[in-house]
Amino acid sequence: MDIGKKSLALHKKYRGKIGTAPLMEIKYKEDLSLAYTPGVAAVSKAIAKNKEKVWDYTIKSHTVAVVTDGSAVLGLGNIGPEAALPVMEGKALLFKSLGGVDAFPICLATQDVDEIVRTVKLIAPNFGGINLEDICAPRCFAVEDALQDLGIPVMHDDQHGTAVVTLAGLINAAKVVDKKMEDLQVVISGAGAAGTAIAKILVPKVADVLVLDSKGLVCRGRSGQDEFKNKLAEITNKKCILGTWREALQGADVFIGVSKGGILQKEDIKMMNNKPIIFAMANPIPEIMPDEAKKGGAFIIASGRSDFPNQINNVLAFPGIFRGALSVGATRITEQMKLAASYALAGMVPNPTVDKIIPDALNRKVSKIVAKAVADVWKSNG
Amino acid sequence: MDIGKKSLALHKKYRGKIGTAPLMEIKYKEDLSLAYTPGVAAVSKAIAKNKEKVWDYTIKSHTVAVVTDGSAVLGLGNIGPEAALPVMEGKALLFKSLGGVDAFPICLATQDVDEIVRTVKLIAPNFGGINLEDICAPRCFAVEDALQDLGIPVMHDDQHGTAVVTLAGLINAAKVVDKKMEDLQVVISGAGAAGTAIAKILVPKVADVLVLDSKGLVCRGRSGQDEFKNKLAEITNKKCILGTWREALQGADVFIGVSKGGILQKEDIKMMNNKPIIFAMANPIPEIMPDEAKKGGAFIIASGRSDFPNQINNVLAFPGIFRGALSVGATRITEQMKLAASYALAGMVPNPTVDKIIPDALNRKVSKIVAKAVADVWKSNG
Repeated sequence: MDIGKKSLALHKKYRGKIGTAPLMEIKYKEDLSLAYTPGVAAVSKAIAKNKEKVWDYTIKSHTVAVVTDGSAVLGLGNIGPEAALPVMEGKALLFKSLGGVDAFPICLATQDVDEIVRTVKLIAPNFGGINLEDICAPRCFAVEDALQDLGIPVMHDDQHGTAVVTLAGLINAAKVVDKKMEDLQVVISGAGAAGTAIAKILVPKVADVLVLDSKGLVCRGRSGQDEFKNKLAEITNKKCILGTWREALQGADVFIGVSKGGILQKEDIKMMNNKPIIFAMANPIPEIMPDEAKKGGAFIIASGRSDFPNQINNVLAFPGIFRGALSVGATRITEQMKLAASYALAGMVPNPTVDKIIPDALNRKVSKIVAKAVADVWKSNG
Repeated sequence: MDIGKKSLALHKKYRGKIGTAPLMEIKYKEDLSLAYTPGVAAVSKAIAKNKEKVWDYTIKSHTVAVVTDGSAVLGLGNIGPEAALPVMEGKALLFKSLGGVDAFPICLATQDVDEIVRTVKLIAPNFGGINLEDICAPRCFAVEDALQDLGIPVMHDDQHGTAVVTLAGLINAAKVVDKKMEDLQVVISGAGAAGTAIAKILVPKVADVLVLDSKGLVCRGRSGQDEFKNKLAEITNKKCILGTWREALQGADVFIGVSKGGILQKEDIKMMNNKPIIFAMANPIPEIMPDEAKKGGAFIIASGRSDFPNQINNVLAFPGIFRGALSVGATRITEQMKLAASYALAGMVPNPTVDKIIPDALNRKVSKIVAKAVADVWKSNG
């Protein structure tokens, strides 16, 4: 049976992937009196008196909403909130299984920025964090920006989860090829949510970043760029190169693909500097298959796939980031917290090799180590 | 330690009352491929093709939102969404523990009817039902009415859960005092959410219902009544009696209190017909304490309290009603479904006595029997 059919059968059998679990037992009348009326009145009164107590007495301190509008689900595109639900449930399942964080899917029947923002604000009282998911670019930027002062961490995982794990992998890849991070010329294929966030996290760390969209290299003054790409153009492409693949890849040390399957050819890799680093992360079909990339001379190859070495998977980041943020009552996810997550991840592979630049996606220690790093940064920098 | 302090300590220890639980295991790479990418894409595609499949493959078929605006929480009043959360968690805990239904709290940071309605519509894609909770009257009526065509059951439990269990108790109480339901003169103290719904469910069953609010008997043409009380006046108080307690209780067979603790005196009961039935359900202090009611001549006494016989507790109704509705894909909770729940509950006590008119709140069979009755009605009447 192929994996899709097997997955359908499993989903039908269990009717989804996440349920609720009582944290208190209801067996005797006294249990009812303590968990519910009349006992619970004391808890409600305590919170009514001091709203901050909601963090002590309720699920808020360990609960995250996984919010989507269903507009950019996996590689499937705008398939709507119902069809997005299995993916959000998967996310909630991973939050719990790998991070010990209780996460619940919220699939919104709107794709209007203001309505998404307003709805998240209205449902925020019982959540300790908001994981935005599978919202298309540039809408995702506007939504995330508008929610940064909500008072709880709001993070669009397709952007920052991907960026954190990519940076972690690149830190170790650079070690393996014996190049300095600050000397790396990086090309990113894809100027959507992931590409933009990866560019932003890499810019302060590397020599230069060139971002390719469907019209070529993002560049200051280029026509056909929205406000977000214009901002991206200000920090990337220092020499303001106008052009396409050829111009981008010549002299590049690193190719990062967050675009479309199959668009990179092995001949393209030959244009790159020695020991090319290829992160071909389109899912489920990478920009170039790892075997093919090797034929083109790639030295280190990472992808989103679990059936090849070096899987760049967001699951290495989001459970730990939120766990860490919740543990210290962080009100937002700062740039330093993301960087701390990247370095913690990279540090988990102290002696990286060509086939091992990043921890395993199912390594149970990851979320704890990431959480600690993230929490420590918040505690010292606030 | 008093029950409030004990409850506070428990809530702090467990940090709330409800968490999430994986329905699939994530242990090996294949698990990840099946629950998440790439396998989950097949599930999302199937739902994108046929939206109804969301009922087969996701949590929707067993998941209910417990939605509040925090405006009428327990007897504490308008304490806001954060302070309401412990109560909503309690509800979710009872949904799971007693009904096997996965319920999740949604505490809204708005008390505007249109915003509440819109938000519920926007978050509906991943829920199979909406339990409205602790929203003040008359707002609760407007919100519930506006959501009846959402396509999934939407029920305000403070209204209908209470009404269903009250009717069940009254059916058996009438048997014990050997009076016919259709001969009963019923007085309801309280014209809020519960009082209104109790009146509506009883009117077709009994001789007459008189409803008391803070200004006296609700009556056609009385001044100071909002549109909802005017509607109530059209179906209750057939003789259009203007007056207060004295006028109401003379000749009454049944007193139902859903108002304020301590407002009924034992002398008041003496004005009632022989074998008075007293349901004093204000929480945590009833309109009259059961011992006191007995001194006044009450023949059958029910309350909301677990430390006296005949506890009228919504928990007897809502888990089974939603469980039943979800099991048959009901798109709303009809009047017949509520009545079926009442009769199923009453039928669980085939030989009622003065001290036993209703099943025990923690009887594990209740939700199954209620669910079956509710589902059967939907299947035959649609």
